[in-house]
Amino acid sequence: MNVPPISSSPERHVVGVDFGTLSGRAVVVRVSDGEELGTAVHEYRHGVIETRLPGTGRQLPPDWALQHPADWRQVLQTAVPAALAAAGVDPATVIGIATDFTACTVLPVTADGTPLAETALADRPHAWPKLWKHHAAQEQADRINELAHRRGEKWISRYGGKISAEWQFAKALQLLEEDPGVYAATERWIEAADWIVWQLTGAESRNTCTAGYKGIFQDGEYPSEEYLAALNPEFADFARTRLAHRLSPLGSRVGCLTAESAAWTGLPEGIAVAAGNVDAHVAAPAAQAVENGRLLAIMGTSTCHVVNGATLADVPGICGVVDGGIVEGAYGYEAGQSAVGDIFAWWLSQGMPTEYVAEAEATGEDAHQLLSRKAATQPVGGHGLVALDWLNGNRSTLVDHHLSGVIVGLTLATRPEDVYRALLEATAFGTRTIVEALEQGGVPVTEFIVTGGLKKNPLLMQIYADVLRRPISLAVSAQGPALGSAIHAAVAAGAHPDVRTAAAAMGRVERAAYRPDPERADGYDVLFAEYRELHEHFGTAADKQLHRLRRIRNAALAKAAPTQNSEES
Amino acid sequence: MNVPPISSSPERHVVGVDFGTLSGRAVVVRVSDGEELGTAVHEYRHGVIETRLPGTGRQLPPDWALQHPADWRQVLQTAVPAALAAAGVDPATVIGIATDFTACTVLPVTADGTPLAETALADRPHAWPKLWKHHAAQEQADRINELAHRRGEKWISRYGGKISAEWQFAKALQLLEEDPGVYAATERWIEAADWIVWQLTGAESRNTCTAGYKGIFQDGEYPSEEYLAALNPEFADFARTRLAHRLSPLGSRVGCLTAESAAWTGLPEGIAVAAGNVDAHVAAPAAQAVENGRLLAIMGTSTCHVVNGATLADVPGICGVVDGGIVEGAYGYEAGQSAVGDIFAWWLSQGMPTEYVAEAEATGEDAHQLLSRKAATQPVGGHGLVALDWLNGNRSTLVDHHLSGVIVGLTLATRPEDVYRALLEATAFGTRTIVEALEQGGVPVTEFIVTGGLKKNPLLMQIYADVLRRPISLAVSAQGPALGSAIHAAVAAGAHPDVRTAAAAMGRVERAAYRPDPERADGYDVLFAEYRELHEHFGTAADKQLHRLRRIRNAALAKAAPTQNSEES
Repeated sequence: MNVPPISSSPERHVVGVDFGTLSGRAVVVRVSDGEELGTAVHEYRHGVIETRLPGTGRQLPPDWALQHPADWRQVLQTAVPAALAAAGVDPATVIGIATDFTACTVLPVTADGTPLAETALADRPHAWPKLWKHHAAQEQADRINELAHRRGEKWISRYGGKISAEWQFAKALQLLEEDPGVYAATERWIEAADWIVWQLTGAESRNTCTAGYKGIFQDGEYPSEEYLAALNPEFADFARTRLAHRLSPLGSRVGCLTAESAAWTGLPEGIAVAAGNVDAHVAAPAAQAVENGRLLAIMGTSTCHVVNGATLADVPGICGVVDGGIVEGAYGYEAGQSAVGDIFAWWLSQGMPTEYVAEAEATGEDAHQLLSRKAATQPVGGHGLVALDWLNGNRSTLVDHHLSGVIVGLTLATRPEDVYRALLEATAFGTRTIVEALEQGGVPVTEFIVTGGLKKNPLLMQIYADVLRRPISLAVSAQGPALGSAIHAAVAAGAHPDVRTAAAAMGRVERAAYRPDPERADGYDVLFAEYRELHEHFGTAADKQLHRLRRIRNAALAKAAPTQNSEES
Repeated sequence: MNVPPISSSPERHVVGVDFGTLSGRAVVVRVSDGEELGTAVHEYRHGVIETRLPGTGRQLPPDWALQHPADWRQVLQTAVPAALAAAGVDPATVIGIATDFTACTVLPVTADGTPLAETALADRPHAWPKLWKHHAAQEQADRINELAHRRGEKWISRYGGKISAEWQFAKALQLLEEDPGVYAATERWIEAADWIVWQLTGAESRNTCTAGYKGIFQDGEYPSEEYLAALNPEFADFARTRLAHRLSPLGSRVGCLTAESAAWTGLPEGIAVAAGNVDAHVAAPAAQAVENGRLLAIMGTSTCHVVNGATLADVPGICGVVDGGIVEGAYGYEAGQSAVGDIFAWWLSQGMPTEYVAEAEATGEDAHQLLSRKAATQPVGGHGLVALDWLNGNRSTLVDHHLSGVIVGLTLATRPEDVYRALLEATAFGTRTIVEALEQGGVPVTEFIVTGGLKKNPLLMQIYADVLRRPISLAVSAQGPALGSAIHAAVAAGAHPDVRTAAAAMGRVERAAYRPDPERADGYDVLFAEYRELHEHFGTAADKQLHRLRRIRNAALAKAAPTQNSEES
C-alpha cells in the first residue's frame, strides 16, 4: 500500500460505482484532485420487487422487498461505459474501480457466487436477494434481540441494544425457517456490497464495514454457535459455514478486474478492485469527513449519520459501532433517522391549498420551495407548534420502529407552511438528540457536514445550524457515494497511501456554509426543551400510547381485511 | 297565557327571526303544526367589523369584533317582508313575532335605546356593539374570575368556575377602563337579543336567558356592589344602573309591535312580541328538546349543547346553568365546543392532493363529501390516529381558550381522509366528555338530538352514535333557531299555552335516525380511553405545554411585529 503518489505522472483516473435502491450511478474521477469528469446512471429494470416474483409472477407476502441481480450487473455493463464516454478519458488511464451498495441488501449464492435467484430455485421467493427494506423478518429480529439480552451477549450493546430486522442474521433466520430447502442450497450468504465485487474480481471477498454493521462481527468474531443454536438448532453453523471469510479493510485492493468484467465495463483487465462498501459510509472521504469528530449526515428521504471516534464507547441507541467501519484506525459510529425528506414529502402529499398551487405555477417554484419561502420569514416559535419526527419510527436513539408522529399546538390559524416548518424543525431536533447522545456517550463531534439531496434547502440547513448551534459544512459533490467509491478505488490502486490522504486530495467540503444565529439558537433551545418533553412522554413510557395506537390499527385492519398488509408504514 | 288553542280558527301564522353572525333569517310558520311556509335571509352589509371602524376608518386593536346596529334593523326591514312574500300568506293572519340573537353580543345605549354607535360618539370604538367573539377583554375576565374565587362568590360555580371574556361583565369592564367617557354616556348596557325587541316594541325588556347565561344573574340578583367595587370602584353601580330590569321568561309577551316596526316589517301593528332569546337555546323547542334530559346539540362551526334538568346541579366546567334559561320550570344547562365544523374546514384549508381535487370534480362531491366517503369504509381505529379537538381552545369542560390541537399516531402512510376522520372522531370524543360530565354531575341525558348544518354528514352522525353509544335523533327543520323563535312567538301570542305544548305541536324531530353499532362502539371505547389520556396529559397539568407553546408563539410574533395581532387564533 505504500506506493508513492503518482501526481507527477500523466493524469490517471478511477471509477466509482454507487448502487442505490432504484438505480446505479458510475462516475469517472481524476486521481490527482477528485475532479468528476463524467457520470452516468442506469435505472434497474425490475426496481424494488415487492408484489410479484419476476418470471413466475408469484405473489409475495406483505413487507417483502427483493431485487434482481441482473439489474446490478447491467449497471456495470451500461453505466460504467457511459460514464467513461461522458468523461472523454482514455480507458487505459483508469487504474482502479470501487463500488458501494445499499445495506443490508443480502443474497444466497452457491460456492462460486451464483445467485440462487439465477438457478433452478428461481421460483422460490427466498432464493432472491433481499433488499435493505425487506421488513418481513421482524419476528426473527425480536427473538435475536430477546435471546441476546437474556444471554448477556456483549455484542448487543454495540448496536444500541437492538439488531434490526433488516440485517443479515434476521433475514437469514427467516430464510431458514420459512424455506429450509433454499437455506440448504445456500452455500454463502453474502452482502450485495461484496457480491458485486465478486463479479468484478471473480473471487469472494468480504469487507469490514458490512460485516461489522450488518453482520454482527465484533471483536474478531461472529455470534457464537451456542447462541445461534439457541435461536434454532439448524442455525448453529450459519456463521461458520455461510459467512466466515477473511475481512478486507475499506480501501484495500481485494483483487483485479477479470477479463469478463473488463469486457462488460470497457475498463482495462487487471486494474485494482477495492473492497466493497456501504453507500452512506463510503461518502465520508468525499466530504473530507474522515478525521475523528467530523460527523457526516447523509440527508435524503432518511438521514444516516457516520462519525469516527478514537475510542470504543457505548452510546445508547446508536445503529452500530465498528472498528474500521468507516476508515481504518478509528471506531466508526453510525446513527440514523428513519425518515427526514420523506416526512416533508408526506406533508406535501396531503395536498396544498389551490391558491398555493396557483402561486407555485406562477413563480415556477416546486412545492418544497414555495412552503420553504413562506415559512422562512417566521420568527422561531412563531407557528406555536412542535412535532415529533417519528412518522417512520425512530432509528436512533430510541431504536423503536413502532413509534409514530405527533403534532402539537395546532390552531384554526395554523397554515400549511407552519406545519411544514415544524416538521423541518422536528428532524433538526431529532438530529440534535443524536449528536448529544454521541457526545454524552464519549464520541466528540467537532464538525457537522451535510451531504445528500436535502443540502440544497437553505431554510432547512439554516434551521439545522440554529438548532445545533453549530456551523453546517456542506459536501461539494452532488454524488457523494460515487465519488467516495472513486476515492477508495484510488487508494486500492495505490495512487494515494490511504483513505485519509486520498480524502484530503480528492474530497471537497465547503466549511461553515451556514452559521448559527445566536438569537435564533436561543429560541430553538426553548423549543427543543418542548420537543424533549414530547420525546420523553411519547417515547420512553413503559406502556407507550403510540404502540397501543399501532396495535389498535393493526388489529382493526387485520380484522377488516385479513390478507392485507397491516404494517405498511 | 291561558288563552285556549285556536286550532279550529282560520289558519294563523307567526314570524321567527334569527340574528346570526353574518346574516339574519326570517321564517313564516303556521301556528297549528309548525309548517315553515316561507323564509328569507338578509346578509349584514358590514358583517363582522374587525379591522376598521365604519365611517372614520379608524383601526381597531387586535381581537376586536364589532357589529353595526343598522345591519340588524335591516333584517326586520327586508328579510321579514321577503319571508312573508315567499310564504304567500295574508299578513293579517300573523299574530306574533319573536327573535333570537347571537350572545353575548352587547351594546351601550342611551335611556331611550339609541345605540351610542349612532350618536356623536360613533368615532369611538367602544361605542359600538361588541359581537360575541370580541376577545379583547381577557384581562378583565381574568380579574373577574380571580376575584370571584378569592371572595368565594357562590355564582362562580354556576359557570363551571369561569366567567368568559365574551360575556357582559368583562366587556363592560373593558369599556369602563379603556374609554371612561363612553362608559359614562352608557345609560343602559344591553344584549342585542333584548335591543332588537326594544326596536319592535318601543320599550326596554330583558330576558331570563341572556341575563342568566351572559349577565351573571343568579338566585334573583346580579353580582354585589361590593364585589364590583373591588374590581374597580367606578364599576360598583354598574349592574344597578345599567343592567337592572324586570326579567321576562322565554316565550312571554313583552309588548306589541309598534306602528314604526309594523311599517318596517309589513306585519300588523299591535301583534305580540316575545321576549328576546339566544340562537342556541331558542332552537330546543323546534326539535322537541324541551323535556328534561333531552340534550340538543347545535352543531355547526362550533357546537352548543343545551339540556334541561329538574334540579340545580354543580357540573364542573359547563358554560352555565340558569333557572328557566331554556324553558320555564327547569334548570337549563349549557355547554359547548369552541370549534367543530371549523376544525374540519381547517383541515380542508390545508389543501387536498391534486388527484382528490380531480376526483371531486368528476363526481361532483364537495371536499367534505369526498373525504367522508373515503374515510367511511375504514374500520374503527384503522387509521391509527387520535386527536384533541382543541384547535380553538376548550369551552367545556376544561374551560381553557389557550389550549390547542394535537394529532398523534401519524405515519408516512397517513392519508388526508385518515386525519379528517380522526378530527371528526375527536369532536365526538369531546362531546362524550361533556355528556359524561353532565351525567356524573347529576344531569341525566336521556336523548341526544342534533340540529345545525353538520347533521347532514351521515358519517359524522354515525360516529357520534357509535362514540356516545346512543341513538342520535335529528331536528327536522333546517332552520332550528328561526323556527324556535316562531314557536316562542306562538306562545307569546297565546296560540299555545306554553313552550312545551307549542314544541309538541310545532317542533319536529326524527327519533333515533342513527343507531350505535355495538362492535364499533366497543372499538370507540378503546380509542376514547386514548383520547382521555391525551386530554389528561395536555389539558390538566399544572404547567401546560400547550400554554407554553402559545406563550412562545405570542412572544415571537410580538417581537417580530409588535403591532400585529398575536392572538388571532
